[in-house]
Amino acid sequence: MAKKIKNTSALKEKEGVTQPNTLNMEVVNKLRTLKKKELNVDGLISGILNGNQTALSQGITIIESKAKKHQLLAKSLIEKSLPHANKSIRIGITGVPGVGKSTFIESFGKLLISKGKRVAALTVDPSSSISKGSILGDKTRMEELVKEPNAFIRPSASGSTLGGVARKTRETIILCEAAGFDVILIETVGVGQSETAVHSMTDFFLLLKLAGAGDELQGIKRGIMEMADSIVINKADGENLKAAKMAKNEFNRALHLYPPKESGWNPKTLLSSALNNEGIEEVWEVVSKYFEKTQENGYFQHKRKEQNKFWLMQTIESRLKSNFYARPSIKIELEKQLIAIDENRTTPFEAAEKLLNL
Amino acid sequence: MAKKIKNTSALKEKEGVTQPNTLNMEVVNKLRTLKKKELNVDGLISGILNGNQTALSQGITIIESKAKKHQLLAKSLIEKSLPHANKSIRIGITGVPGVGKSTFIESFGKLLISKGKRVAALTVDPSSSISKGSILGDKTRMEELVKEPNAFIRPSASGSTLGGVARKTRETIILCEAAGFDVILIETVGVGQSETAVHSMTDFFLLLKLAGAGDELQGIKRGIMEMADSIVINKADGENLKAAKMAKNEFNRALHLYPPKESGWNPKTLLSSALNNEGIEEVWEVVSKYFEKTQENGYFQHKRKEQNKFWLMQTIESRLKSNFYARPSIKIELEKQLIAIDENRTTPFEAAEKLLNL
Repeated sequence: MAKKIKNTSALKEKEGVTQPNTLNMEVVNKLRTLKKKELNVDGLISGILNGNQTALSQGITIIESKAKKHQLLAKSLIEKSLPHANKSIRIGITGVPGVGKSTFIESFGKLLISKGKRVAALTVDPSSSISKGSILGDKTRMEELVKEPNAFIRPSASGSTLGGVARKTRETIILCEAAGFDVILIETVGVGQSETAVHSMTDFFLLLKLAGAGDELQGIKRGIMEMADSIVINKADGENLKAAKMAKNEFNRALHLYPPKESGWNPKTLLSSALNNEGIEEVWEVVSKYFEKTQENGYFQHKRKEQNKFWLMQTIESRLKSNFYARPSIKIELEKQLIAIDENRTTPFEAAEKLLNL
Repeated sequence: MAKKIKNTSALKEKEGVTQPNTLNMEVVNKLRTLKKKELNVDGLISGILNGNQTALSQGITIIESKAKKHQLLAKSLIEKSLPHANKSIRIGITGVPGVGKSTFIESFGKLLISKGKRVAALTVDPSSSISKGSILGDKTRMEELVKEPNAFIRPSASGSTLGGVARKTRETIILCEAAGFDVILIETVGVGQSETAVHSMTDFFLLLKLAGAGDELQGIKRGIMEMADSIVINKADGENLKAAKMAKNEFNRALHLYPPKESGWNPKTLLSSALNNEGIEEVWEVVSKYFEKTQENGYFQHKRKEQNKFWLMQTIESRLKSNFYARPSIKIELEKQLIAIDENRTTPFEAAEKLLNL
């Protein structure tokens, strides 16, 4: 082994002065306070009320958060937004994947912005893991709308229960309204329960359809057609146009078989080609007429009140149920009673009593 | 005052023997036991199983009774009937007053009896105080059917809640099946919730319609058409025939717009003139085909299981709700919260939580 040489440098330095800390702690503390402030209700709220989209996004994230500390914050955010809410037109838009919802929303949204409106587009899709690609989650599908400063696009609230998703969406609507959005578009996929939920939180319900395909091919769930305030047959262009016109007549006939709506409104069937920006103006005309008519006859306000009551009751009742069925003793006895019913040993009513008396 | 004369009779009698009691207590006790026996479960059940209509009527009266002592008896009656139940075809029949329900049931019932069937006709009408005259309550509307020994006609179970009426009707069905009835017809008025209830306890749902009148004139509630397994346009005779044929085509077209039913069954539109006994055989053919098809594909059994589950859950959930809302503290707070929602001071979700935490 080579003898170890003592490591003495040829360059010698005198002891110098202590270098100052590279971080200015005063500035750090200032920044920290600033960051904290950003998550403060007051800061967020004033941002939201000023139409700041970053603040709005942050607010929605807090609403969607499951963390305990965010829940208190969310509550207070909502409370402070409430006096500024209720001032938009809420439009539900549904239709199966492939009907052109994203293109329609892009085209419709741009039209509204050109009329001076501020437009928020949200989604409700409790099953988002399945239909991921077909819904707003993919913002790039609305390349132009996303660039508009007066548009706000927010992908689906995630959640395992429809009730949870509905709550988050309802609260997001309140925040968007506080942020000054005039029109809220709420997209859903048209194949499940989510339509009823969206119908229960919007003023106007729009069903997008394709010509030539029966409902069975379009996967539209029973009852959705009855909820529609307008049916828009999209992709009414080129070779499709003739079929679309025929479909329009057919839907008009079918709609006549339905009893009149409580709103006094007769649902309208329209044609559109969202891709070519055709027929979109007419859709807005119909929505405006609906708004006028239901404002005048009081149905608009009445419906919102009813919707509030609905969600109050809905929340109470779903919690009562989930609390009941979550009890382990109920779970065990329920299984037993279902078998007893199947084997004709008891009736559903007797079984229910037994479970309720547990 | 006249002096009181001592009252001594001119006729004097010796003390006689004690007269025997005019009531033979042995016979009285025998009769008493007999009467008790008539309300004994065993006697009633053997009567019902033998198809004795008096026993069946008594059994139903016990089921409908609100007296505590009858409730235990009812429970035991049901338990003993259950092994003999589930063996009929249950057909729900609806349509607005004036569509000819009674005449249709009379004509349809007589046809079934001529085919060797035993037919029971029941009604569900929670609002019977309003539409009293238009429903089975008035037995004389079925003059001929009522005379048939193989027909059993029972007017509406009365009750203030739909849940209560539904329970009584479901239990009455069990008794009728135990009494050997092959076809149970359940009539309802076509204007309210009761259709959904009847749909949830029958195998086949038949909607009676009139030609020429829109749904709005016929008062058919939204969604009822979608539940129909067959639409029968009644009074298709004389001057009405042409309009009825046109209506048939129109309904057929409309039915095509609906997505397919879980049963795999395509609803059929038919014409009938119950008054002239025309088209009634065809209705039975359609019901028979439905029965065959759904027995084969397993839907028939599946639907009954689902219906049992539905009623189990339904009973549990409606009781959970009524227990909750009946609490005085909830009543008071609910009013307050509804006002707070209307005044934009809280959201339905916050309000629900407050109520649930009471």
